[in-house]
Amino acid sequence: MTVKAFGAHAADKPLEALDIFRRAPGDHDVQIDIAYCGVCHSDLHTVRGEWAGTLYPCVPGHEIVGRVSAVGAQVSRFKKGELVGVGCMVDSCGRCASCAEHLEQYCERGMTLTYNSPTPDAPGHTLGGYSQRIVVNDKYVVKISHREEQLAAVAPLLCAGITTYSPLRHWNAGPGKKIGVVGIGGLGHMGVKLAHAMGAHTVAFTTSESKRQDAKALGADEVVVSRNASEMDAHAESFDMILDTVAVSHDLDAFTRLLRRDGALVLVGVPKDAHPSPAVFNLVLKRRTIAGSTIGGIAETQEMLDFCAEKGIVADIEVIPIQRIEQAYERMLKSDVKYRFVIDTASLAAGPRG
Amino acid sequence: MTVKAFGAHAADKPLEALDIFRRAPGDHDVQIDIAYCGVCHSDLHTVRGEWAGTLYPCVPGHEIVGRVSAVGAQVSRFKKGELVGVGCMVDSCGRCASCAEHLEQYCERGMTLTYNSPTPDAPGHTLGGYSQRIVVNDKYVVKISHREEQLAAVAPLLCAGITTYSPLRHWNAGPGKKIGVVGIGGLGHMGVKLAHAMGAHTVAFTTSESKRQDAKALGADEVVVSRNASEMDAHAESFDMILDTVAVSHDLDAFTRLLRRDGALVLVGVPKDAHPSPAVFNLVLKRRTIAGSTIGGIAETQEMLDFCAEKGIVADIEVIPIQRIEQAYERMLKSDVKYRFVIDTASLAAGPRG
Repeated sequence: MTVKAFGAHAADKPLEALDIFRRAPGDHDVQIDIAYCGVCHSDLHTVRGEWAGTLYPCVPGHEIVGRVSAVGAQVSRFKKGELVGVGCMVDSCGRCASCAEHLEQYCERGMTLTYNSPTPDAPGHTLGGYSQRIVVNDKYVVKISHREEQLAAVAPLLCAGITTYSPLRHWNAGPGKKIGVVGIGGLGHMGVKLAHAMGAHTVAFTTSESKRQDAKALGADEVVVSRNASEMDAHAESFDMILDTVAVSHDLDAFTRLLRRDGALVLVGVPKDAHPSPAVFNLVLKRRTIAGSTIGGIAETQEMLDFCAEKGIVADIEVIPIQRIEQAYERMLKSDVKYRFVIDTASLAAGPRG
Repeated sequence: MTVKAFGAHAADKPLEALDIFRRAPGDHDVQIDIAYCGVCHSDLHTVRGEWAGTLYPCVPGHEIVGRVSAVGAQVSRFKKGELVGVGCMVDSCGRCASCAEHLEQYCERGMTLTYNSPTPDAPGHTLGGYSQRIVVNDKYVVKISHREEQLAAVAPLLCAGITTYSPLRHWNAGPGKKIGVVGIGGLGHMGVKLAHAMGAHTVAFTTSESKRQDAKALGADEVVVSRNASEMDAHAESFDMILDTVAVSHDLDAFTRLLRRDGALVLVGVPKDAHPSPAVFNLVLKRRTIAGSTIGGIAETQEMLDFCAEKGIVADIEVIPIQRIEQAYERMLKSDVKYRFVIDTASLAAGPRG
């Protein structure tokens, strides 16, 4: 079948209206009518060819929520009409040690990303959620138990939510722990909400004095303006974990020295230009670690969604029609969004100019 | 009391014979007649003022073994005549969270190092093991159960041994684990022996083809010449932990990419010039960590010594008289030692030129 989508034919071309192919649901497939799709920085980097290996036409989007419109014969977990989500991956090998441990995001043969990964379907690579419909193997579909009116704001949980939830859980955020979140954007604002909901003493780090009140409103117990040396010094050697969501080159030592013994600075953003090399001294003296983490497994994504539904957590969003995607990208680059754009995919029906 | 020692009066002066003060043993002190003292790279860096903050006169040495020659009234754990050791620290606060967990090396108020730390004793800073005698609070003295003829080769266990033992234990080296050791010098050769004795599949990394047989003899199950790309590639994504003992700037990415998911690259050397900044991508994609570690606590040092005695492990050493210390430093800088120099402190009695 053919559905409407928005994508780019080349790195230097703007996104435009496209018709794309979706396969008929196989025995294990779930067909989803997409209601909303969040806009992630990865979308922009990929579609503009800023990372190596973009396959065109490129249809981005991996924060997908919608309603089941058909299921394959062997699908028992989902029914037509249910609210569901799809995140950053739509397949993995299912047999390696990581898949066996429900850590498909670390699949040793490489997961199939929701867009820009090889697939047997036309055109030979996966196409994402800036589209009316998607067909996905049921193992990679998650249930949404939020209220329907929250649906648009649930979309960013599928990437920004799980990308922060998974390391917070892995590094044991919870009562009695002091957790920092660096960068109050799409990922960081979720990190603050989640760390707070997990019961940790949550400290938001921002470079802008102007974000202090906003960060408090998100649930931060304390806010530190990282340009202010005396504010930073007051937190020396005190954090169990600092989740660093900033994807541009910056000084990591400013944060490692705030970790207590055995503390971890966990990076979830990959900067285009390398960070200044972190001081080994800061690691050795307190057995500190610098680590990385990416999204989460499917089971953990479901756990995160259930946790968020129970706690009433959604992203803070600005809904846009697809025709405003290029302006949204420009505003994202200026951090001019609180805190995530979400595409209302109903706008796809209106054609190229809405 | 006054004892003979070797030390330097300034960064640009060679070590020379000195008479130094040692306090009479207090109620909780152990007085040790030093038999041997290992020669660590830290000795050289400190005495030559290559690290900030050297206090002169500087008497280095923190791999101390010898025999108890007197004990204070309240000392019950040690008796005159027993073989004992002193490592890198001689005091800590005893009250912080790290001290309470027997991790005195991470004391939050700062441990008192065996040399170059403030002390009430003359001359106001601690003086190390390049001397005939030392007086140490009994909590910082460890028992040696090796055979007496092994004593010289036990000395390096007090720094090189514990510095590698502690991270190997912390990151769970043992049967079923694949452990790498980078750099086959004073620390690295102990790392190989210890990882092997713990039952891990042990892989030694060296830059020199010439060290291949030596590394096997130390107990490495495999040896990889790290300049050989195809040898390195064969180990991609396979290590649980890599212990990196190299204290000069080098490419960490070559090793992080050899770690499996959740694997750790643990640095125990602090380079003078920073390592090239490690690729965040390598960390994020497999939830890998880069960590640091320093020596070990007193209880763990005792555990290490007992483990080594039981397994028959000592360092590979070259014994020198103190009068050859400057030549030994020059040879260390060229890695021309297998693998640790140990000073026979009987040579101190012979005066400046032996």
